Amino acid sequence: MQRFINPSEEKWETLCQRGSASYTSLEPLAKEVFDEVSKKGDQALYAFTEKFDKVTLKKLSVGADEIEEAKVRVPQKLKSAIQKAKDNIHLFHRAQKTNEIKVETQKGVNCWQKKLPIEKVGLYIPGGSAPLFSTVLMLAIPAQVAGCDKVVLCSPPDINGKLPDVVLYTADLCGIDTIFKLGGMQAIAGMTLGTETLPKVDKLFGPGNQYVTVAKQWATQYSVAIDMPAGPSELMVVADASADPAFVASDLLSQAEHGPDSQVLFVTTDTKMMDRVDAEVDRQITVLARQDTAREALKNSKIIFFDQEEEALKFTNFYGAEHLIVCLKNEDEFVDKIKHAGSVFIGNYTPESAGDYASGTNHTLPTNGYVRQYSGVNLDSFLKAITYQKISAKGLQELGPVIEEMANAEGLQAHKNAVTIRLNKLQNE
Amino acid sequence: MQRFINPSEEKWETLCQRGSASYTSLEPLAKEVFDEVSKKGDQALYAFTEKFDKVTLKKLSVGADEIEEAKVRVPQKLKSAIQKAKDNIHLFHRAQKTNEIKVETQKGVNCWQKKLPIEKVGLYIPGGSAPLFSTVLMLAIPAQVAGCDKVVLCSPPDINGKLPDVVLYTADLCGIDTIFKLGGMQAIAGMTLGTETLPKVDKLFGPGNQYVTVAKQWATQYSVAIDMPAGPSELMVVADASADPAFVASDLLSQAEHGPDSQVLFVTTDTKMMDRVDAEVDRQITVLARQDTAREALKNSKIIFFDQEEEALKFTNFYGAEHLIVCLKNEDEFVDKIKHAGSVFIGNYTPESAGDYASGTNHTLPTNGYVRQYSGVNLDSFLKAITYQKISAKGLQELGPVIEEMANAEGLQAHKNAVTIRLNKLQNE
Repeated sequence: MQRFINPSEEKWETLCQRGSASYTSLEPLAKEVFDEVSKKGDQALYAFTEKFDKVTLKKLSVGADEIEEAKVRVPQKLKSAIQKAKDNIHLFHRAQKTNEIKVETQKGVNCWQKKLPIEKVGLYIPGGSAPLFSTVLMLAIPAQVAGCDKVVLCSPPDINGKLPDVVLYTADLCGIDTIFKLGGMQAIAGMTLGTETLPKVDKLFGPGNQYVTVAKQWATQYSVAIDMPAGPSELMVVADASADPAFVASDLLSQAEHGPDSQVLFVTTDTKMMDRVDAEVDRQITVLARQDTAREALKNSKIIFFDQEEEALKFTNFYGAEHLIVCLKNEDEFVDKIKHAGSVFIGNYTPESAGDYASGTNHTLPTNGYVRQYSGVNLDSFLKAITYQKISAKGLQELGPVIEEMANAEGLQAHKNAVTIRLNKLQNE
Repeated sequence: MQRFINPSEEKWETLCQRGSASYTSLEPLAKEVFDEVSKKGDQALYAFTEKFDKVTLKKLSVGADEIEEAKVRVPQKLKSAIQKAKDNIHLFHRAQKTNEIKVETQKGVNCWQKKLPIEKVGLYIPGGSAPLFSTVLMLAIPAQVAGCDKVVLCSPPDINGKLPDVVLYTADLCGIDTIFKLGGMQAIAGMTLGTETLPKVDKLFGPGNQYVTVAKQWATQYSVAIDMPAGPSELMVVADASADPAFVASDLLSQAEHGPDSQVLFVTTDTKMMDRVDAEVDRQITVLARQDTAREALKNSKIIFFDQEEEALKFTNFYGAEHLIVCLKNEDEFVDKIKHAGSVFIGNYTPESAGDYASGTNHTLPTNGYVRQYSGVNLDSFLKAITYQKISAKGLQELGPVIEEMANAEGLQAHKNAVTIRLNKLQNE
């Protein structure tokens, strides 16, 4: 891993550069897919699945029988683990429920805010080498807690036209019964536009490769919202001598195995930790199945030393990591001053994996510096807030002149009239 | 106004069609403005202001002296009205503060969520015929309550290179000291990219014409978020015989005066109300200063009669209005069943104007059916949620095997290792 010792602030921008590409080259393809799906519906979905996934499907939707069969095949030990993770995630997301907010801002003027579920949501679960059932938990549980009416799940079929057993099992466990064998751009287009078989959803959630990312961005031109802009996953570890170098190395590697474009930063205030962590990374990497991927990611990874913890903190906020592990003697003070991060993992016994799977927090988090303005997926991501107001006759008599004065100053006479006409009636009663 | 009697459901889609245009034709201009601002900074901002606003500025920023002078010129009566509105808006938005959420999801596994302010926000206040100081209140107050570090305000200069006194007064009242005489696409580009003078912001807020709308959409390609997609303003009034036809007409007209593309719908369950409201609209419109605009908007407006209140409710949810006024005998039951609306105004003495200016709720709301998935601007719009977790050694001993099992099933060995290495150490201690 490359090292940087007390880099000066003008170098930070370069140090923090993400490797995320601009995907404008894929936009014509997205346009084509959306246009085809808009015109031909299901037929286009089948055709694209044949073209991109090399599989001819008989049916897009997963039948109840397929789910039942899949459930039987999932080992009991894995089922128990998933259940435990589900319980924790459920607890943490249910705790995010907020009460209706009601304020009588002045006598007779009652204002309130209520959050309602987004009716129809679409969850995208990537396929590929591994069955990402943990992402099913992370998206389906808050959707369920929020009370979304319709939860649609899309995931690309394997070469035999199947979805992984454990993905079906987890979806079923979370109450999802509308599952499609559909991946990539065509899945996003299908859920955005709706077809004979696919319901049109109000909001799209979930990670994906660059095709899915571009399709989600493209989808925002239609009347659909997306959870957040996506980018390669990131981890920053900030540690001093109180950290265990082997633990730190294992965390860095868990990030590095995600993909060759994974971002891995290790910030330390202890000179010896640089060598120690480096040595541990070298030692641990040799036994990894995804060693090649990890080595590729580590090429862009960095060890950054600051002799002042204050500088380390400043740099941490400057970077704004998706995942941030903090192993410092004075962790409380440091954590208190973190302004920009997606999810923070504190202390030697809190690996990122815990949050990835089972502690309760969500693992769908903003990357690429978007922690500055976006939250990770949470209960509110599946809700929308509506405001209400009711003003009594007396209340309007009090507040009316204020509205009249302001509407008049903005040159909006009809806005003023709507008050005046009511006040006149009240005066004549 | 056109009338529709008990329209059947298959006609609703057409009835609810918004007049919003696709602005792809303006994208090349947005690209040009962003490219120029990116290359030339302030120089480009001055040049575009000369080109589009026909004014040669000496300085982009508004000086403290200009603000002080403006304050003196605002009439005391207007100042008092603004202060009252500010108090109400402040009360309602402060009430939206949520506490830190902390959950021990299982013994030794502590997860929490904290909301932090988005550091730098940019507020766009449209110019044009009227000084929209109410929008300053609606954006600046929640930004202030949220605790945003840097609040930047841009608004286009008039032909003399000035901003309206009352806009400066209101901004100052809300603690904003970074104000620029800058409008249109160049303002959005400036706040998105940053220049010598303009700070780069994290999130952009505020309404605007089609140029601003396209520029905001374009801005999302850079590392900035926007409040919501914009479209022409909308009002739906649902009323039965308990409503006052003159009040209803005044509300419809207050929406119609906004612009020729304003959406105005009147839904009623009382046949006589159709004639009565129509007659009142005809009577009231004649004295309006913005009569031509209102007449233009009314061309697309509709009166829709349903003899069943249940159908009216269904239609209301189908349309999903930005502003929804409900004047019905059984208002409570109806309001309880509203699923899609931006802001709801209940009863005869709650005109939309109240929420536009002074009751306390926000007037920046989703249009064009986006109420299905977006909230109006609220306190949370200026915050982001970060999650945290700390797991004790004992906690990890409990939860660790669950994580190992799941990581293993997803084929992510390094994720598993990060737990195993810790559990091994604990076992050997």
